[in-house]
Amino acid sequence: MKRIALMPLAALLMGAGEPAAPAKPALSPSEIVAQAPATDWAAIAPADLMVMDLAPLGAKPRRVVIQLMPAPFSRGWVLNIRRLVAARWYDGVSVNRVQDNYVVQWGDVTEKKPLPSDLVVVSGSGYEARFTDIGNSASPMSFDPPFRWGASVYDPYINSHRIEGPPQLGWPGFSIGWPVVAAPTFPSRYTVIREVAGTMWPVHCYGMVGVARNMPPDAGTGAELYTVIGHAPRQLDRNIALVGRVIEGMEHLSSLPRGTGALGFYEKAEERVPILSVRMGNEVAGLPAYQYLSTDSASFAAYADARANRRDAFYIRPAGGADICNIPVPVRRVP
Amino acid sequence: MKRIALMPLAALLMGAGEPAAPAKPALSPSEIVAQAPATDWAAIAPADLMVMDLAPLGAKPRRVVIQLMPAPFSRGWVLNIRRLVAARWYDGVSVNRVQDNYVVQWGDVTEKKPLPSDLVVVSGSGYEARFTDIGNSASPMSFDPPFRWGASVYDPYINSHRIEGPPQLGWPGFSIGWPVVAAPTFPSRYTVIREVAGTMWPVHCYGMVGVARNMPPDAGTGAELYTVIGHAPRQLDRNIALVGRVIEGMEHLSSLPRGTGALGFYEKAEERVPILSVRMGNEVAGLPAYQYLSTDSASFAAYADARANRRDAFYIRPAGGADICNIPVPVRRVP
Repeated sequence: MKRIALMPLAALLMGAGEPAAPAKPALSPSEIVAQAPATDWAAIAPADLMVMDLAPLGAKPRRVVIQLMPAPFSRGWVLNIRRLVAARWYDGVSVNRVQDNYVVQWGDVTEKKPLPSDLVVVSGSGYEARFTDIGNSASPMSFDPPFRWGASVYDPYINSHRIEGPPQLGWPGFSIGWPVVAAPTFPSRYTVIREVAGTMWPVHCYGMVGVARNMPPDAGTGAELYTVIGHAPRQLDRNIALVGRVIEGMEHLSSLPRGTGALGFYEKAEERVPILSVRMGNEVAGLPAYQYLSTDSASFAAYADARANRRDAFYIRPAGGADICNIPVPVRRVP
Repeated sequence: MKRIALMPLAALLMGAGEPAAPAKPALSPSEIVAQAPATDWAAIAPADLMVMDLAPLGAKPRRVVIQLMPAPFSRGWVLNIRRLVAARWYDGVSVNRVQDNYVVQWGDVTEKKPLPSDLVVVSGSGYEARFTDIGNSASPMSFDPPFRWGASVYDPYINSHRIEGPPQLGWPGFSIGWPVVAAPTFPSRYTVIREVAGTMWPVHCYGMVGVARNMPPDAGTGAELYTVIGHAPRQLDRNIALVGRVIEGMEHLSSLPRGTGALGFYEKAEERVPILSVRMGNEVAGLPAYQYLSTDSASFAAYADARANRRDAFYIRPAGGADICNIPVPVRRVP
């Protein structure tokens, strides 16, 4: 299917001018998602959700739902966050920083609120998770955790698509619903590849949630969190821990007034947005059930291909590629 | 300099573990910009600025300053926009659409306000500008318009860094202060390159301003405009006209409440944000003078390199590359 689809694209790119209108416009990415069979959707466990209620805006409630990352990613910080929620530590802290085209950050503005005693210290090595090849001759290159290479996804932040630069192979793709990079580790550049192992790490796309830290790489506890509200700051990958993503209510964070202090910090106490409470999803009565489009499904592959090669009626020139953050994993309430 | 800088990076990427702390941390991108000599800054002509005053928020004025693109980019639409401003056409229209992680759009919500009679129709071929090689043996590959290849910039949306896909060479880079792609046109894939010509087009980064259109590629007049408020929607490149960028007051657009209708359109009239007036910069008394960091300057090269290879103290692993929208061209008020 991909080969056929690329034929008109190639014609376009070769400068053949406006193509004849296709008999039937291709589906848009959102149409592909809308038509995905129920079996292509995967449930998100309520216990993996963090429900953050901001102070209402006038009479309007502001609920932000965050999905925490599954194993093997960022385990230490996710554990800490669960403990901070259990201790009700986030209740009463606030959103303190909104920097345009960068991040919204929340936590204890005094930096003096005592932390629970059971938090763990996680070293910077936790920014990456190990993967191994569990494939066999029938199913080669099958990774644990699962990994799906993103066809038509190209990544300026790793080296496999570069002409120059230091040698590092890596693939952008998706693992159990999350955008990641997988980078094999070879004993040397010239070793014959028999089996693959390496590290995999989640990447900084719009809406991803991470752990703010001070200078030492192990300084972040999980008490201070941020989410991306602008163009993907991929330079943060492997320099700071990602722990989840906003799956609902993003607009309550992204539309906050920008802070006027350095780094977008609010300068006046009354600008800060109080966080009334943070609870795990299984503690919240009446919370909707959520699903993500399985990144191993045929529907997701078609969706990703359509994001990279827009052939629906509006487009006259498909790009032929996309960066991984321009292929957001679809999440929905269970219909 | 670049080679030397890459040595510790290579050590990191090869898995040598945490490096010894350098004797002196490298400058951050913002420090490089702050230290750029005055001669590396280029003036922005007030006549190329469009000053849009939104209705105040409470007592707070909301001014958005937009820089229009210089020749040879998007000439027809920029001409139309100048005529629309001269006719005071935008005065009294409104912001009607705010779609999270995508665009803010403004214009006449009724789509019935009569347009000035002197607007031109611009075909989709206007999405690209021609460039030619004016180099000689002393200065080969010198383009008109000027073009500076973005070292350490890699682009998923063109083909030069791809392993698979249709053959199209292209370079991400900067032309007279704007992020662009330059794509040479060859008579055939195998022609020996003697001189280069092709097309160059601006790209959809955060804060870029474009011309909304209906289905036909020539349907956009410039009366309906949008700006990007999320991750770069690069699939729009060459599918819609870019005409400028927001250089000040972006937060007045990006922090607007998201629309709850389809595509982020506001559903109630009172949600729309009135546009009081739009004037060219040379019509506005007391407007500050603005400059951009010349994309041909040594300071810009150092800044771009630092964005792609963060070596300042916070970072433990420089990425070794960046996408072009993660290297925003610095703009400032003349100090």
